[in-house]
Amino acid sequence: MSAVLISDPTLRDGSHAVRHQLTEEQMRGYMLIADAAGIPIVEVGHGNGLGASSLQLGESLVSDPDMIRLAAATLRRAKIGIHVIPGVATLHDLKSALDLGVHVVRVASHCTEADITKKHIEYVRSMGREAYGVLMMSHMAPVEALVQEAAKMQSYGAQGVILMDSAGVYLPRDVTERVRALAAALEIPVGFHAHNNLGHAVANSVAAVDAGASILDGTIRGFGAGAGNAQLEVLVAVLDKLGYATHIDVEKLLDGANLAEQTIIAKVPTINSTSVVSGLAGVFSGFAQPVERLSRKYNVSPHRVFLELGRRKIVAGQEDIIIEVVHEIAASTAH
Amino acid sequence: MSAVLISDPTLRDGSHAVRHQLTEEQMRGYMLIADAAGIPIVEVGHGNGLGASSLQLGESLVSDPDMIRLAAATLRRAKIGIHVIPGVATLHDLKSALDLGVHVVRVASHCTEADITKKHIEYVRSMGREAYGVLMMSHMAPVEALVQEAAKMQSYGAQGVILMDSAGVYLPRDVTERVRALAAALEIPVGFHAHNNLGHAVANSVAAVDAGASILDGTIRGFGAGAGNAQLEVLVAVLDKLGYATHIDVEKLLDGANLAEQTIIAKVPTINSTSVVSGLAGVFSGFAQPVERLSRKYNVSPHRVFLELGRRKIVAGQEDIIIEVVHEIAASTAH
Repeated sequence: MSAVLISDPTLRDGSHAVRHQLTEEQMRGYMLIADAAGIPIVEVGHGNGLGASSLQLGESLVSDPDMIRLAAATLRRAKIGIHVIPGVATLHDLKSALDLGVHVVRVASHCTEADITKKHIEYVRSMGREAYGVLMMSHMAPVEALVQEAAKMQSYGAQGVILMDSAGVYLPRDVTERVRALAAALEIPVGFHAHNNLGHAVANSVAAVDAGASILDGTIRGFGAGAGNAQLEVLVAVLDKLGYATHIDVEKLLDGANLAEQTIIAKVPTINSTSVVSGLAGVFSGFAQPVERLSRKYNVSPHRVFLELGRRKIVAGQEDIIIEVVHEIAASTAH
Repeated sequence: MSAVLISDPTLRDGSHAVRHQLTEEQMRGYMLIADAAGIPIVEVGHGNGLGASSLQLGESLVSDPDMIRLAAATLRRAKIGIHVIPGVATLHDLKSALDLGVHVVRVASHCTEADITKKHIEYVRSMGREAYGVLMMSHMAPVEALVQEAAKMQSYGAQGVILMDSAGVYLPRDVTERVRALAAALEIPVGFHAHNNLGHAVANSVAAVDAGASILDGTIRGFGAGAGNAQLEVLVAVLDKLGYATHIDVEKLLDGANLAEQTIIAKVPTINSTSVVSGLAGVFSGFAQPVERLSRKYNVSPHRVFLELGRRKIVAGQEDIIIEVVHEIAASTAH
């Protein structure tokens, strides 16, 4: 039985869905659920990663250090993971996080900018903690470029590289091609992080492990921005059915999912038409809420906004451009 | 470009989700949406098919003949389809439906009982209308048996055979194997009808056309019992992206889906833990509501009920067994 390491960003990526307003009580409750079911890694921190709480990206109700402290006090078996984008998180933020007990650090960059992860990966390894590289918005680079960027992360000391389908663009054939290429080129494990814009988050995750990946991300009930992530309890049940070993208790996870739905999930993600357009356009899922809000406010078609954002190849951190595009479309249709 | 014929059972299979209580106004609104987007076939009638409105299966707010009349008066381009289970619908019901203007008849049986479709298929063909065979709960028979049953339907005059994954059990590899076998053995088109219990409804539908199917079913926002069906607008967008020709206007369909969500869908289906267990157990999706309701009433675990129903190989029409199983489990845990 092939083993798959599950990392659970429910409290991190999921927090996009509630604009980073999860309370300590909600987070503690979910940590207990995940820990009891045997989830190996629980990610914490702001939706956009360590140090991202800000006016522009959204302020967290609970600070990153407080979330890490809570995780350290609550989790008995699961490791504490964080998502770190160099430039958003400083080495000083990272040092504090490690001091508070973080075990696993995902150092992430846009898919063509692995260079920026070097210092952070090396620092984490020098401190004796686990470091993984993450290539975000991976559909924006050709396969050969992804392989080169992943190889850089490996050379910095990353113990695995995770491909993120940040915009939920991929279909299984896309995942298979990319994971196969990475698995063939790297000596470290390959991982995959899905979004559900085109209804394929779970299927793409399965395609990833079938193609040689051994790390998968999923959130409970798919909790996340827009169409959400790979639905963790469905993914684990399917992996179990297919004979992959996750060492997670499926029944406990399914029961825990019911409880989590009542306690942390204001609305279980569904695929609305905007999600589909954002997936077709290849735009970051985290932009669904601001695009829908601003489109409503200025009475423009969110479809047009997404397609234009896709043409401009907008990436996380460029939220200003949404307002710009909405204004331009509103002006062009006012005549 | 390979062509895929889309049949839309939103108003038929979807009505399970609202216990067959859609109003004429709601149905007319959705028919206009589907027709404007270019959906080729719109299915109408009770969720369990023509003539199923009853105390046991649930009484429709609008009768089958009234729904067909409404469709005939409303649809300008789409054909009117109905789902017919011989025994539930008599030949007399069928004659009335054809008289009212039905174009396409799906004659359905449990996957091992194609024999019962003979008279109905022959009658529909003798009246010059389109007849398809449908194998429900297709996971309950081995591949060779499915091929034999489908071949019978072909011999009766069926112009295509649709495999239903009524319990949402399949993963893409299962679909590929079955569709390939059918496509190789039959001279008529093969179709596939998915449910989303394991998060694979859209991916399985794509796997079906990749394996040679040319007819797919989907409902708007996945509207249907339990975890719902293949989400129609996502499916059509994905087929379009992959280069399959559906002759449906994707943007109109996405806009129409927003409207449909507001007007006919009380709650967009999501995958809850019961859906997953029902998918793992191989139990008909239409049973999710009664199982949850009765499990709550008698304070038993719906997981246990589903697993027991799976062991007993319960099929549609055996709703009595749910109550029996719930009572037995309640009694066994009362000590």
